[in-house]
Amino acid sequence: MKTRKTNWGRWGDSDERGTLNLLTPELVLAALRLPKTGKTYSLSIPIQRSGVPNLEYRGTPQRLTLTNHDDEAMARANGGAPGVGANEDQLILPSHTSTHLDALCHAYADDKIYNGYPADQMTPYSGAAKCSIDKVGGIVGRGVLVDVAASKGVDRLEPGYVITPADLQEALDQQEVALQPGDLVLIRTGWLEAFMAGRVDIMPQPGIGLEAAAFLAEKDPAIIGSDNSAIESIPFDQHVYLGGHIILLVEHGIHLLENMNLAELAADRCFDFLLSIGALKITGATASPVTPVAIG
Amino acid sequence: MKTRKTNWGRWGDSDERGTLNLLTPELVLAALRLPKTGKTYSLSIPIQRSGVPNLEYRGTPQRLTLTNHDDEAMARANGGAPGVGANEDQLILPSHTSTHLDALCHAYADDKIYNGYPADQMTPYSGAAKCSIDKVGGIVGRGVLVDVAASKGVDRLEPGYVITPADLQEALDQQEVALQPGDLVLIRTGWLEAFMAGRVDIMPQPGIGLEAAAFLAEKDPAIIGSDNSAIESIPFDQHVYLGGHIILLVEHGIHLLENMNLAELAADRCFDFLLSIGALKITGATASPVTPVAIG
Amino acid sequence: MKTRKTNWGRWGDSDERGTLNLLTPELVLAALRLPKTGKTYSLSIPIQRSGVPNLEYRGTPQRLTLTNHDDEAMARANGGAPGVGANEDQLILPSHTSTHLDALCHAYADDKIYNGYPADQMTPYSGAAKCSIDKVGGIVGRGVLVDVAASKGVDRLEPGYVITPADLQEALDQQEVALQPGDLVLIRTGWLEAFMAGRVDIMPQPGIGLEAAAFLAEKDPAIIGSDNSAIESIPFDQHVYLGGHIILLVEHGIHLLENMNLAELAADRCFDFLLSIGALKITGATASPVTPVAIG
Amino acid sequence: MKTRKTNWGRWGDSDERGTLNLLTPELVLAALRLPKTGKTYSLSIPIQRSGVPNLEYRGTPQRLTLTNHDDEAMARANGGAPGVGANEDQLILPSHTSTHLDALCHAYADDKIYNGYPADQMTPYSGAAKCSIDKVGGIVGRGVLVDVAASKGVDRLEPGYVITPADLQEALDQQEVALQPGDLVLIRTGWLEAFMAGRVDIMPQPGIGLEAAAFLAEKDPAIIGSDNSAIESIPFDQHVYLGGHIILLVEHGIHLLENMNLAELAADRCFDFLLSIGALKITGATASPVTPVAIG
Repeated sequence: MKTRKTNWGRWGDSDERGTLNLLTPELVLAALRLPKTGKTYSLSIPIQRSGVPNLEYRGTPQRLTLTNHDDEAMARANGGAPGVGANEDQLILPSHTSTHLDALCHAYADDKIYNGYPADQMTPYSGAAKCSIDKVGGIVGRGVLVDVAASKGVDRLEPGYVITPADLQEALDQQEVALQPGDLVLIRTGWLEAFMAGRVDIMPQPGIGLEAAAFLAEKDPAIIGSDNSAIESIPFDQHVYLGGHIILLVEHGIHLLENMNLAELAADRCFDFLLSIGALKITGATASPVTPVAIG
Repeated sequence: MKTRKTNWGRWGDSDERGTLNLLTPELVLAALRLPKTGKTYSLSIPIQRSGVPNLEYRGTPQRLTLTNHDDEAMARANGGAPGVGANEDQLILPSHTSTHLDALCHAYADDKIYNGYPADQMTPYSGAAKCSIDKVGGIVGRGVLVDVAASKGVDRLEPGYVITPADLQEALDQQEVALQPGDLVLIRTGWLEAFMAGRVDIMPQPGIGLEAAAFLAEKDPAIIGSDNSAIESIPFDQHVYLGGHIILLVEHGIHLLENMNLAELAADRCFDFLLSIGALKITGATASPVTPVAIG
Repeated sequence: MKTRKTNWGRWGDSDERGTLNLLTPELVLAALRLPKTGKTYSLSIPIQRSGVPNLEYRGTPQRLTLTNHDDEAMARANGGAPGVGANEDQLILPSHTSTHLDALCHAYADDKIYNGYPADQMTPYSGAAKCSIDKVGGIVGRGVLVDVAASKGVDRLEPGYVITPADLQEALDQQEVALQPGDLVLIRTGWLEAFMAGRVDIMPQPGIGLEAAAFLAEKDPAIIGSDNSAIESIPFDQHVYLGGHIILLVEHGIHLLENMNLAELAADRCFDFLLSIGALKITGATASPVTPVAIG
Repeated sequence: MKTRKTNWGRWGDSDERGTLNLLTPELVLAALRLPKTGKTYSLSIPIQRSGVPNLEYRGTPQRLTLTNHDDEAMARANGGAPGVGANEDQLILPSHTSTHLDALCHAYADDKIYNGYPADQMTPYSGAAKCSIDKVGGIVGRGVLVDVAASKGVDRLEPGYVITPADLQEALDQQEVALQPGDLVLIRTGWLEAFMAGRVDIMPQPGIGLEAAAFLAEKDPAIIGSDNSAIESIPFDQHVYLGGHIILLVEHGIHLLENMNLAELAADRCFDFLLSIGALKITGATASPVTPVAIG
């Protein structure tokens, strides 16, 4: 890792936001001028116990009912009129469930996370001291869909398919879109739609390979997302465990958006758009479930 | 309730989105033209065990560590190189914790939620069948800050202060902003900043009263938010339990944004802006924690 | 149900403990005289994420680390010397996970739980008002193992096998043990050992059928347990959903012990023994995970 | 610590059970002969959101409803007749909540837990590799109540009172009971009853001091319990953070029972009895909530 190019130090030794630093007000203003239709896209999949790609070791995501109409006595005790009350939930969620944004502290290599902070700076009680998701804040910029499946004329890439730089370039060429620094790049494999329709198993999954990761990092994006569970292919390209995460997240400080719902953008052939992401400000967390919002 | 004006039926008998229906593509495109500076504002407060207004009956929000560097054996077992691994969390969250968006199923009156659906349509296991938060999707529109505290020349309204229509109109007049149908209206009391600075207790809280709720509903906003725990004052105005919720959420189908962080918008005197909200798609849930994102 | 014999009203209209009422001090003192070896048996299986029969809809049981050595700063802040600290956990558990005791409120039929209390007396927030697990307290009495698998000379009954009254009687005869009122009766199928060794799937499971349930109820036991997930066979005997629960739990007020670890008692051919069960006093709960303790 | 007498190595270098090794079958058989009345005592307090001594940093214990009568559709889909269904819960519990048994891995000093195992052997995902609560199994022996409050003629010791060896000896003398190796010793302060009746705050708490801990360790008990949150006084005696835990749990391998409900035993002046404890077999956990069961 030491000899490879990284973004460590690029925004100072105390930086915790990586390529999100590229999202200047000028770039944001430019992104606001992209939408043509004004159509709002909601780019997340459901958070629920089953039917979505929950990895088993993370445990079942659960929405539980905290109060409903049967607890109306609580409302009455506080002066509620008959028939008045509140429905509420309690949630048990792995932070990397459903559609989510990985914080820069999520992965480490050579015992270091992004910018050289030590990997052991995350404790059970307090969470991550550096590069946690609460350092992210609101993210707005130009979203670019790279529809690899469509450029190959298929509904979905084969399970385990390793996306190459050529695949990405071909899709961009077909779409007549060029990547620019600070872009929020979303790569479509078609896998998630097939999984949720029950047509493929949770593993293996298509995704970018190591060369594609390096190719993308070179483009200086603010974020990379995909419609699969790890951006990169599973099994990992060249058997490098978390290899794509290491290049993008650890070495280049690029936050990753996983399990993106890209179906509707693809159907509309909406290739560049305004994209807005509001990560929850969970103190010390390694990720946040999100619903990214696009305007076409 | 029966004799008061409501939005029930206005968008059909099967509507579950209320005034979010006002957010047409045209309105969204218009909102995109508002920003002048391109500055991104993150309008949420932290999700953490203490220091934020968590209501006791909802239980403590918890971020717990699922894996960290001490679990590197898991990565090794999957082929990870020495020094490579992943940090992950498990979350326990009341859905109405921190900054959150209430779903239209959250409150009920006369045993009915918005649009006349029965209040007992929420079960423990499946959650709400109607008007749950997963029906919301991405929300984008014109945000308007109504800084009542600033218009009165104070840092914060007194605990328990009941905001009147005149208070709102005065603030709007001073700001030289007029409310329009479909606006995402954010009312600032200054309370949350004072609470988080340890200067006031969690109760009582300033907020809108019943007349202000009716005044706002009349303006046909898509959403109403505030920097307090319930939009409305606590104790409730005129001792009507959840009175503001009943007028806005139940009768008018207006989603509510609570515990908003409005400090930075106020400091910048940024009164209208692009506002984007991505509620988590939690199947059957009554609310979602969110980080609303504004562009000034 | 109405024409069948039940224990409703037998201990008064306000009873919530069913056949636990049979456990008189005299019976307890008699049970204390049973042990011959003084060997202590721990009759539970592990509570963990996998490898045990967790039903999917209940979600994954999770032990999470609340604090460990990495959080020593918390101890230091409270005056702890270097190297001093505490390890703690947070648990997420379905109450019916692993080895557990069903409360009498767990199942209902004809919209009623044991003793005729209405089934709808359990609310999301407060739990069960009647017959919840916190009404149980400590349970001590004569335990009897009915080793049906051994009496048939097999390691385990076939998946889905429906145990008959004749099977039970034959096992008792072979063991030369007679059931007495107030016994804590544990029926061994051998299934759980086979499941945990990875030799059979989670479904189907052998267990008692409807006639065996009636046969057992007639014997007036204080508790019935088994080394499977529901005491009764799955699929349910004669396709009666929860039929065994209805006869035993609902109609006769007999608490049920599920997923019992009976391997060691069986290996020692220990057929009657002192048995002690300490259900957690979880207010309003429908069950408690337990480790029943036997003395042979 | 190095120069003080400990039990490290006493039962071999691979021991994880400490003084529970003292509970031989002979000792168990002797304990079975103690009960005179056959009365069963349940020695736990409720597990619930409030009204019990939950330490804030551990988060709120929660019983949530997983299914109730409103989810009867689930039963119907599986063949359930109308009016038939199941009530179930989901639990969120700190393992050290309510009445619980501390595992030997719970506390460490000089970076070591009992028997010299390194303190850093507890990871977030897997929990404690050594001395976790699942190593405990069923515990049965002679319980001894040492009612310090009664011996002083008071309802409860003063908040923060530090119990001395003389206090313990005086109580034992008054009770005419002598401690024996392998005893399960329960020390009553009266504090918990007062707390639950709302008469004292959660802090400070009376409990044993460092000298009393050493005095007790010398008696070679199998377990020590008390009706307070940490056995030892809070603030800690002589300002030694976790000093009592270090002597008893870390140095002597004595499991600790906290928040014991000793009111009924005290009222009956039942000073020695059969005591049975079934710790949940939670893989890797640092404690288990329990309901110890006594027979007088």
